[in-house]
Amino acid sequence: MNKVKIPLDESDIPRQWYNLAADLPTPMLPPLGPDGKPIGPEMLAPVFPMNLIEQEVSTERWIDIPEEILNILYRWRPAPLRRAVYLEKYLDTPARIYFKDESTSPPGSHKPNTAVAQAWYNKQFGIKKITTETGAGQWGSALAFACQLLDLECKVYMVRISFDQKPFRKIMMQVWGANCVASPSPETNAGRKILAELPDTPGSLGMAISEAIEEAVTDTTGKTRYALGSVLNHVMLHQTIMGLEAKKQLKSANEKSPDIVIGCAGGGSNFAGLSFPFVADKINGADIKIIPVEPTACPTMTRAPFAYDFGDTACTTPLLAMHTLGHSFVPPPIHAGGLRYHGMAPLVCQAIVEGLMEPRAYNQIDSYGAALLWARTEGFIPAPETSQALAAVVDEAKKAKEEGKEKVILFSYSGHGLMDLAGYDAFMSGRLTDYELPEEDLKKYIEDIKNYPKAEIRKSGKW
Amino acid sequence: MNKVKIPLDESDIPRQWYNLAADLPTPMLPPLGPDGKPIGPEMLAPVFPMNLIEQEVSTERWIDIPEEILNILYRWRPAPLRRAVYLEKYLDTPARIYFKDESTSPPGSHKPNTAVAQAWYNKQFGIKKITTETGAGQWGSALAFACQLLDLECKVYMVRISFDQKPFRKIMMQVWGANCVASPSPETNAGRKILAELPDTPGSLGMAISEAIEEAVTDTTGKTRYALGSVLNHVMLHQTIMGLEAKKQLKSANEKSPDIVIGCAGGGSNFAGLSFPFVADKINGADIKIIPVEPTACPTMTRAPFAYDFGDTACTTPLLAMHTLGHSFVPPPIHAGGLRYHGMAPLVCQAIVEGLMEPRAYNQIDSYGAALLWARTEGFIPAPETSQALAAVVDEAKKAKEEGKEKVILFSYSGHGLMDLAGYDAFMSGRLTDYELPEEDLKKYIEDIKNYPKAEIRKSGKW
Repeated sequence: MNKVKIPLDESDIPRQWYNLAADLPTPMLPPLGPDGKPIGPEMLAPVFPMNLIEQEVSTERWIDIPEEILNILYRWRPAPLRRAVYLEKYLDTPARIYFKDESTSPPGSHKPNTAVAQAWYNKQFGIKKITTETGAGQWGSALAFACQLLDLECKVYMVRISFDQKPFRKIMMQVWGANCVASPSPETNAGRKILAELPDTPGSLGMAISEAIEEAVTDTTGKTRYALGSVLNHVMLHQTIMGLEAKKQLKSANEKSPDIVIGCAGGGSNFAGLSFPFVADKINGADIKIIPVEPTACPTMTRAPFAYDFGDTACTTPLLAMHTLGHSFVPPPIHAGGLRYHGMAPLVCQAIVEGLMEPRAYNQIDSYGAALLWARTEGFIPAPETSQALAAVVDEAKKAKEEGKEKVILFSYSGHGLMDLAGYDAFMSGRLTDYELPEEDLKKYIEDIKNYPKAEIRKSGKW
Repeated sequence: MNKVKIPLDESDIPRQWYNLAADLPTPMLPPLGPDGKPIGPEMLAPVFPMNLIEQEVSTERWIDIPEEILNILYRWRPAPLRRAVYLEKYLDTPARIYFKDESTSPPGSHKPNTAVAQAWYNKQFGIKKITTETGAGQWGSALAFACQLLDLECKVYMVRISFDQKPFRKIMMQVWGANCVASPSPETNAGRKILAELPDTPGSLGMAISEAIEEAVTDTTGKTRYALGSVLNHVMLHQTIMGLEAKKQLKSANEKSPDIVIGCAGGGSNFAGLSFPFVADKINGADIKIIPVEPTACPTMTRAPFAYDFGDTACTTPLLAMHTLGHSFVPPPIHAGGLRYHGMAPLVCQAIVEGLMEPRAYNQIDSYGAALLWARTEGFIPAPETSQALAAVVDEAKKAKEEGKEKVILFSYSGHGLMDLAGYDAFMSGRLTDYELPEEDLKKYIEDIKNYPKAEIRKSGKW
């Protein structure tokens, strides 16, 4: 017997999501409108359905998961918790390493946890069509999947360079019935304007967001809304099913509590989903080290100020209080495309400011080194984003060995890398380059942030 | 509650493989050497380790699975049995459809079930390096995975056109530490000879087999052997863990016995793995329809004679008694690359001759239609090979509806399609072509078979 998988029966799936906003020591800073004043829920109504807006601003601690959402999640949830006994053995560490395996969903990542919930709430609200943007395609494919199962139309604006260079995620979206177009497209005013000025542009996430929001808010039938795959409070909420399941599974493995919780963070939803239920324990006195991991190429949490900034590069969203490199920051082309975001979820940032988390950055060469070690011991091939978390896991396991301590490490295995193997090729052949944001560039971006309307730079633990 | 997954506890994993050779009404025809005489085990010794040769010729009904092999299989086994409730609902069928999900292994298919076993037996025998060939890369990646976990060297000769056009499986093999070279290569006499004559050849499975066997048998240290991913008796044996697990899972779902068992068959191992334990029940009187499914482009079981033929196009293997289109048959380039084989596992063929199975062929357009329906109801994206089985599943479920019968259908979900999405693109855009072997071509191939040494054409149920 070799107990590497800790299952959870369907009947034990969590029935409520956990809302960290209810427990943070200080209340969240409100999002601001273009006039610098806090916005009310009604201002978001053209973009999101009201039931999701209510979740976005809720401070209720527990929010019921509708049975019909659970019925869809059962296709792959509860997700397995596994113990990385082979990596432990290789590292000769006294640490016990557990990972929540979110790679088993049909699109291969944690993204459908919120895609299904968002699609369901849109449908409840009478919406017929959801628009969104996607970079490499993880989020777009998750939303396409969810809309297919709920019989909603799905329109995905995919950054042109990914649309052309990475056709497989696009095909995946089409298999699930979505209409996926390259952005900028001739289908929106925003897209036409950009194409007229820059006909050969490779596109960007900012451009794609502008197009997706435009299509949603200009639909005269009122039956179209927009969906975002990370950053917002309700997205974090939907992802907490990860951590809540993991808690039950750790208990059934006779572990009292993790000592360390680790997850990679781009917009923050994967990390938040696993960690927030444990952040609650920490607020209540538990001794847990909670580590969000980001790339050195895009050091939002570890080097950027906590300030008000736009969520998108086109300045169409409200201003959010978060650690930000500035909305004009263009991250270098690292393979972990899901971590290339200038900001970070406000809930994660507030928790960092409160001293509840210890963010850390790794470069992509160290991350691929950890990923290759993982693939050669555990046997599964991780996504480039997941590899960032793995670098921290390996470090913490080595530290436990040095200290001779039986630590329990829990981390999020956010996705598989089967559709992103090019980075491994570059790493193994020595062609992988690394990126670290130079100090003078960082200063320039921070100066910019001071000019944003109502910028309110506050110091986090590191600032 | 929506019970779509039927788990099996690790402690209930089968401890023995099932050997159909023990129960077939008539004994298997022996493999023949180049002289037309039955070969002894010792003639295979330069190619395979003796412990696997013993399994190849064994007629024991049950063969113990070594604990160390189980310890590796636990990484993803027992594999889930799932019920396709969403497809059932869409088809409005009274049939209950269960599928054994082999897509959850790290390489994404059933192949590692035998790759791990073969690597382990080679290691027990003192072998240090295993050679093999691969087409699209499913088998090569499974063997690379197994060798990595058992610390063996692995050398894969990959058909050049796939090596060049489908780089991702190659990267996967490299991630797992294998040395993957394009075949024909300059590394063997066979490869050099072909390259001298045909410098621009796209390669073929036959050429790659010749190179892999040559490297194994010419290693003067005697520490290298060759491995095959299907066709042979010991490969079928290792795959029976699928059907044995499924039996236990059906029982825990309160199903007495399947009425219909379906699997796609190229070399036969996936189909055999699921079906053989149920073939045993059928021999003992159970009323089960057992359907191996093949492409109309490569109609081995449904249209070809049962005869003695070489296993490879280069005529280096012993002659095997099987349904064969002739070793010179070149299947058209269908997307289900794993089903492009001129022959079929002798154990499967003998069972067909005995009337225990009802082979069926589907074209790839119907198969992709079934695959798309599956992806849009069940949510998972199947491999092109698996899609062939799905076409039969949909037909049988519709038939159950017409007959108003509550049939239990069990099939093998042999792999996911995440690394083979191009076929979906072709299908959805109407570019997918179909292939059916013309009668006159078939006749020509059959005439050829009569000229093989010791050809012994016997009539199967259909002949």
